Amino acid sequence: MSEIQETIHLMGRQARAAAYKLAQLSSDEKNAILRAMAAAIRESTPDLLAANAIDLAAGSEKGLSSAMLDRLRLDESRIEAMAAGIDQVATLPDPVGQVLEKWTRPNGIEIEQIRVPIGTIGIIYESRPNVTADAAVLCFKTGNATILRGGSEAIHSNVAIAAALAKAGAPEHAIQLIPFTDRESVAVLAGMDQWLDLIIPRGGKGLIETVVSLARMPVIKHYDGICHLFVDKAADIDMAASLTVNAKTQKCGVCNALETLLVHKDIAAQALPKIAAALREKNVELRGCEQTRAILTDIAEATEEDWFTEYLDLILSIKIVDSLEAAVDHINTYGSHHTDTIVTADTATAERFLRSVDSACVFHNVSNRFADGGEFGFGAEIGISTDKLHARGPMGLRELTSYQYRVRGKGQVRG
Amino acid sequence: MSEIQETIHLMGRQARAAAYKLAQLSSDEKNAILRAMAAAIRESTPDLLAANAIDLAAGSEKGLSSAMLDRLRLDESRIEAMAAGIDQVATLPDPVGQVLEKWTRPNGIEIEQIRVPIGTIGIIYESRPNVTADAAVLCFKTGNATILRGGSEAIHSNVAIAAALAKAGAPEHAIQLIPFTDRESVAVLAGMDQWLDLIIPRGGKGLIETVVSLARMPVIKHYDGICHLFVDKAADIDMAASLTVNAKTQKCGVCNALETLLVHKDIAAQALPKIAAALREKNVELRGCEQTRAILTDIAEATEEDWFTEYLDLILSIKIVDSLEAAVDHINTYGSHHTDTIVTADTATAERFLRSVDSACVFHNVSNRFADGGEFGFGAEIGISTDKLHARGPMGLRELTSYQYRVRGKGQVRG
Repeated sequence: MSEIQETIHLMGRQARAAAYKLAQLSSDEKNAILRAMAAAIRESTPDLLAANAIDLAAGSEKGLSSAMLDRLRLDESRIEAMAAGIDQVATLPDPVGQVLEKWTRPNGIEIEQIRVPIGTIGIIYESRPNVTADAAVLCFKTGNATILRGGSEAIHSNVAIAAALAKAGAPEHAIQLIPFTDRESVAVLAGMDQWLDLIIPRGGKGLIETVVSLARMPVIKHYDGICHLFVDKAADIDMAASLTVNAKTQKCGVCNALETLLVHKDIAAQALPKIAAALREKNVELRGCEQTRAILTDIAEATEEDWFTEYLDLILSIKIVDSLEAAVDHINTYGSHHTDTIVTADTATAERFLRSVDSACVFHNVSNRFADGGEFGFGAEIGISTDKLHARGPMGLRELTSYQYRVRGKGQVRG
Repeated sequence: MSEIQETIHLMGRQARAAAYKLAQLSSDEKNAILRAMAAAIRESTPDLLAANAIDLAAGSEKGLSSAMLDRLRLDESRIEAMAAGIDQVATLPDPVGQVLEKWTRPNGIEIEQIRVPIGTIGIIYESRPNVTADAAVLCFKTGNATILRGGSEAIHSNVAIAAALAKAGAPEHAIQLIPFTDRESVAVLAGMDQWLDLIIPRGGKGLIETVVSLARMPVIKHYDGICHLFVDKAADIDMAASLTVNAKTQKCGVCNALETLLVHKDIAAQALPKIAAALREKNVELRGCEQTRAILTDIAEATEEDWFTEYLDLILSIKIVDSLEAAVDHINTYGSHHTDTIVTADTATAERFLRSVDSACVFHNVSNRFADGGEFGFGAEIGISTDKLHARGPMGLRELTSYQYRVRGKGQVRG
């Protein structure tokens, strides 16, 4: 075994032991520790800023882009936001211990299905140091032990954050940060299914692909959002324009932002000029199919590649479709099964759309931007899953739990 | 692309298309098709027997064991049982369409979490041809398209069963059987995450390990059952003996059978002779730790390997432990997190055990043998999952579904 293997396997064994202790903590005990974590983050502000300065200097020297450096940067308000986030998690209801179902069988045995922690969770992430606190705290609230593996650019910041969290009186090894940032550490973590119940990669497609190809345990994936809005022939055009503008421009670099607008052919000539004008006011670049370009004559052509593209930028592709079915087909073929919206005044059409689109979130007359744990009322979000198993769509605390069957009897045997 | 790759990828694309159709079927439509499948199986009895005879002859020639040949064998009563099983699935409630939760946000958007099919499921299995019908039918009931890949020994029987099922009017490609039985077909299926949402391997540890190491999509694993029964110091000794005998001998070759008996030191001298006598009446071979052998002087030694072993046979390992904590530690360390039981008259002790053992099913004063979808009242069982994500413990129809968020509004935008 290499030093990396030995270290990470030891962390795995320690995480398992910590998970058994965490599972026994009451909600009050966990919340008190969370508030202590928030306080420790605040008190450690000077240390965090000093550690972050080292990362920022190294990042500048390495020639990181200003966007990358901004992601990496901690300042007093970001540190305060991190601490406030932890305090907020302390106030949320604890899903662990919730009885999901309870029934008695004819032979008298009583069966209870009860929420329990998953156990041990690996988080692999890239440059944002605040993920260290955010992810660890959500896992802690749900009684899970975490092993964190952050990106190399943020290593000093991550170590400082983990050190602050460790001062709060959580069971030993409840939150562990891997001190290595090379690729081997990802492979070792992903292969360690005897110690790790789940891996959540937080980052770009490349990172997720790597983890998926290496992992022997379940991976919850937060892939792209190639999100659509379909303007049905029975749409209110003003509403369609307002929802399109909001979904595309309210924040364009996020997974629930709009990437492709689909418009029913019967309403295209009326709707497209209005929608396009509203989008241009917000400086959105438009690309269209041939039929779209017959109406919006000055826009560029959208190619096959555009339909597959998550721009994360002020660019929108537009396609005119012949029917609801064609819209659904386009979404199911080119989309990423994240969040797709229909705008229509026709309830029957809307319901057909909601039933037929194979996405985590399907919306009627609502901006795609509402696909979010906070907007759903979950109080906290670990991400938006593009998986279909275990957790689909916005993931809150509940999705960080498993369940167990507890069965009580009076000596019944099977005949 | 090889011929195998091309064929299986085409099946994947077809399965996805079929899944979209299946998701639109009503429960009544699905149940009518299920009853037609049962009828088709009955009508095809001569064909199934003829195909099975070819497999049996090939199996004999290859020198398969009589146990293997028995697993492979179809006869009229087994075919009737297969058909009756399908009729039974038709009578079960359909989980698809169930509203799991529904709430309205302060801004007026209405959120509904609704059960939907998972989509496309791959089933990889070994010699029992009845799995072809059993697994496909449960997936069909829940609106999922299946791709089946059975073992080479049963290929003619599997083809005949799939041909019978195909006569029942299900959407085309709802149930597809891979015509190849070589290893490459497993690798191709496991790598095809663009078309397949889930793989369920049904078979031995080697098969599951192979699928886990190759799969890019979620795998639901049905690993070993290394199940324990702990006789607490406050146990009723007669109940302990009765539950031990039932859990070990009622059917010993199954995953919920007992493999290791743990006995509290304070009750061992009284309890062990009684329990051992009852087990010997059923011809169970006993192996014990040193302390056990001081009481049961004529039994063999249990080695470290015994604690890790799923005998699936009339053999039981016995260990005396100092405390509840030691019992829990032993179970969490050596067990397979399947089903573990405490026998005690002390409710507080029982509750501590149930809370501390990290297994899918934790039982108090009930035989381990009740860890079963049928015994839980699920009506049908696809297996007993040893995973913690998505499905844990006995898996019925519900565990073959995912969910989707359907959100309805009046033009709300995010501010």
